[in-house]
Amino acid sequence: VSVPVELSLGELAVRFGLKLNGDPSLKVYRVATLANARDGCLSFFANSRYRRQLATTQATAVVLNEADAAECPAAALIDRNPYLTYARISALLHPQPVIEPGIHPSAVVAPGARVAASASVGPLCVIEDDAEIGERVLIGPGCVVQRGARVGADSRLISQVNLYHGVTIGQRCILHAGAVIGADGFGFAPDGGAWVKVPQVGSVRIGDDVEVGASTTIDRGAVEDTVVENGVILDNQIQIGHNVVLGEHTAIAACSGISGSTVLGKRVQVGGMVGISGHLHIADDVQILGCSLVSASIKKAGTYSSSMPVVEARRWRRMVAVLRRMADKER
Amino acid sequence: VSVPVELSLGELAVRFGLKLNGDPSLKVYRVATLANARDGCLSFFANSRYRRQLATTQATAVVLNEADAAECPAAALIDRNPYLTYARISALLHPQPVIEPGIHPSAVVAPGARVAASASVGPLCVIEDDAEIGERVLIGPGCVVQRGARVGADSRLISQVNLYHGVTIGQRCILHAGAVIGADGFGFAPDGGAWVKVPQVGSVRIGDDVEVGASTTIDRGAVEDTVVENGVILDNQIQIGHNVVLGEHTAIAACSGISGSTVLGKRVQVGGMVGISGHLHIADDVQILGCSLVSASIKKAGTYSSSMPVVEARRWRRMVAVLRRMADKER
Amino acid sequence: VSVPVELSLGELAVRFGLKLNGDPSLKVYRVATLANARDGCLSFFANSRYRRQLATTQATAVVLNEADAAECPAAALIDRNPYLTYARISALLHPQPVIEPGIHPSAVVAPGARVAASASVGPLCVIEDDAEIGERVLIGPGCVVQRGARVGADSRLISQVNLYHGVTIGQRCILHAGAVIGADGFGFAPDGGAWVKVPQVGSVRIGDDVEVGASTTIDRGAVEDTVVENGVILDNQIQIGHNVVLGEHTAIAACSGISGSTVLGKRVQVGGMVGISGHLHIADDVQILGCSLVSASIKKAGTYSSSMPVVEARRWRRMVAVLRRMADKER
Repeated sequence: VSVPVELSLGELAVRFGLKLNGDPSLKVYRVATLANARDGCLSFFANSRYRRQLATTQATAVVLNEADAAECPAAALIDRNPYLTYARISALLHPQPVIEPGIHPSAVVAPGARVAASASVGPLCVIEDDAEIGERVLIGPGCVVQRGARVGADSRLISQVNLYHGVTIGQRCILHAGAVIGADGFGFAPDGGAWVKVPQVGSVRIGDDVEVGASTTIDRGAVEDTVVENGVILDNQIQIGHNVVLGEHTAIAACSGISGSTVLGKRVQVGGMVGISGHLHIADDVQILGCSLVSASIKKAGTYSSSMPVVEARRWRRMVAVLRRMADKER
Repeated sequence: VSVPVELSLGELAVRFGLKLNGDPSLKVYRVATLANARDGCLSFFANSRYRRQLATTQATAVVLNEADAAECPAAALIDRNPYLTYARISALLHPQPVIEPGIHPSAVVAPGARVAASASVGPLCVIEDDAEIGERVLIGPGCVVQRGARVGADSRLISQVNLYHGVTIGQRCILHAGAVIGADGFGFAPDGGAWVKVPQVGSVRIGDDVEVGASTTIDRGAVEDTVVENGVILDNQIQIGHNVVLGEHTAIAACSGISGSTVLGKRVQVGGMVGISGHLHIADDVQILGCSLVSASIKKAGTYSSSMPVVEARRWRRMVAVLRRMADKER
Repeated sequence: VSVPVELSLGELAVRFGLKLNGDPSLKVYRVATLANARDGCLSFFANSRYRRQLATTQATAVVLNEADAAECPAAALIDRNPYLTYARISALLHPQPVIEPGIHPSAVVAPGARVAASASVGPLCVIEDDAEIGERVLIGPGCVVQRGARVGADSRLISQVNLYHGVTIGQRCILHAGAVIGADGFGFAPDGGAWVKVPQVGSVRIGDDVEVGASTTIDRGAVEDTVVENGVILDNQIQIGHNVVLGEHTAIAACSGISGSTVLGKRVQVGGMVGISGHLHIADDVQILGCSLVSASIKKAGTYSSSMPVVEARRWRRMVAVLRRMADKER
């Protein structure tokens, strides 16, 4: 159950070191957009495309930059990084549901599993032998934690998450429904025209403060482990191949795929629907724009792209034709 | 359990207002392709590439256009839109299994959940507090309906569907296995090199007559709701970001992804593996061809593309090289 | 439970017909990379980029080519196809866990289901009426096998796999978590601006020795069946549309999608994130490079590509601009 929270602007200003233009005794109890905020709502202004909505907002308070404060018709909570401050206030106003410790009677917990007394194991979960569920962990309904997998303190598997055998998850992680961690990598040796499966004997190690989106899959290593370092954030429907390493605070948007044995540095930002080939190294602080393909290592920080935007289909057909013709001329 | 159905051509002609060339007392009991139809089968002809198969079909009856009726060796059910009429007859011949009302004893239904007496809740489902399951709804095996989620009358969650807290599903919807509705959107505020989660306090509202394919994910809104309007059809493995709005009767093919806050109009058709960036507006009746990227708003109905078809790899390498050379010359 | 295995190099040489440089009484008990191998480890050398690691490996034995044997500081197991031989030895050293026959008491097995006495049905599975589970099959935790679906001998559904009604799976297959076999194909007839569902009355037939990755979806046929022939290997998050046929030993990497009614020949290799349009024929032995689009049939074996690799974003923008300009000039 969520506990409703109400906070005064004065408390918020003190807590986050904000300058306040307005009555410190005013209270907010939830966040809202500038356009739809009503009495008791907190909003934020960080994107100039919403300037008109700022002028007419009915929010009780708005978090924004000093430079924009004069335009704010409501109380202003002023900060250099309004979106970040907004995120932190929102987390106070909308806390995670309180975890009720205990194992639901319908869960199937093997005798050799170790579940912390403060953890919650939801209905119809399966926790296999030698699995380890840390303090205050939430295992939501229908999750499967196979033998020897471990979940660190304060992590949350929301619903129907699958952890294969031996996988380890750090602390304060969030894994969304349908995430599959530790399925076999795609390793096969050709034998004439056929394929012989190469056993995937590595595992997956996920650090602390990692978020994994719905239906994202992270394969176990072929021999050594697939590694996701601290603070990595992964959107939905991402595929991470075997033996990949994702460096700290790397962020990947939905529907992207990283092929086997590729290493991403720290703070790499990968747009949606990006493909990265196998056995590459991507330097720290690289940004890849959405719908691009990376097929060679990138050694230098910077922004890279091969994303081709749509035009009218008739014009596009001419673009394809002219490119083909020019290439054929050169033969 | 499905109930077998047998219908006479006369009944069909009357019911759907079709012209019949043939014996009205002939009966059909299932659909088949022109090539594999046998006695008692109904087929259709709507694509000229199958003309040769029409000539030799052993179907008892074929639904087709007036113009093609002369070529039909079987009884002909004649209509201007044969594929649509075929779809409707097929639905009569192959009805959905009858729902057996009741809650399976292995399901875990919270005391505060409201389940209509005519609804069916399958084995090993979890229905949390304040969830609401409407009349004649089918909740198939292993589904999770979190607190406060609502499913409208006659909708079907086939198997292992996940509805997060507070999500609403309209009437007559079909959600396939592995669909995840209402996971957190990908919202994080940068804090130096790290990321701070922005609570996702909106929800998802899905209208009536919506179909959601297997493993498709629709994220909850950051502040307001993600909205899927009536009659939208979504194929498998589609990702819909937070705060997206999909207009009525929009259709999206498999593996596509729509980034956050983008609004698609009515009757938009999106091919497979299309990426659409965030914060865009796509006009009514726009068509996007498969494997394209949309990175700017589209204000005018029409067909748009950036899909680049394969050629032999050697030729393709020349195409890439010539394009790079020309761009570099211009510097 | 896995059973630990230890094998002497002499046994391995005899069993696989290998030439051995070294002491036949030495034993290995697990595989490792050249870099991290220790006493008792078996490694392999098949990619020249790891030559330096060969020189310093501490493996007990290395599987490699005759030509490289002189460089091997450890015992050498010599074969023409070292990776294949390594795969086979690894399977001996790391056998699949032994299946414990029986039905877990928490599984819900319908009275009309037929489960072989040697099969294992895990906790919280649902096996519906008329389903058939063959000899020594493993149905892992949380799987759903709908009415009339059949699983052949020695196949393994690892966890939370979904088989829709009537689907058939051959022998010795492996299906990973979240795979969905037999959901409805994306078949709708336009009716003015709206869509009418076309019943999907075909099924899915999967042959022997097929592997299906995590969250891969294979739709049931519209009228006839979707077919996956023997020895096909499918990575994670692949979408296979209705009525597709995948020929023997075809291999598809992650995140690719095959649209409805397309037929792939034998031994086709499809890279990651490839889209293939509907109603096409792809010849035997075709290779499609990653992130490409196939929108026309391919009649000749060979390698095909439309994968566009990233460059610096500024340079990429010039490439797009010059292409547009040239196409527009031609109008």
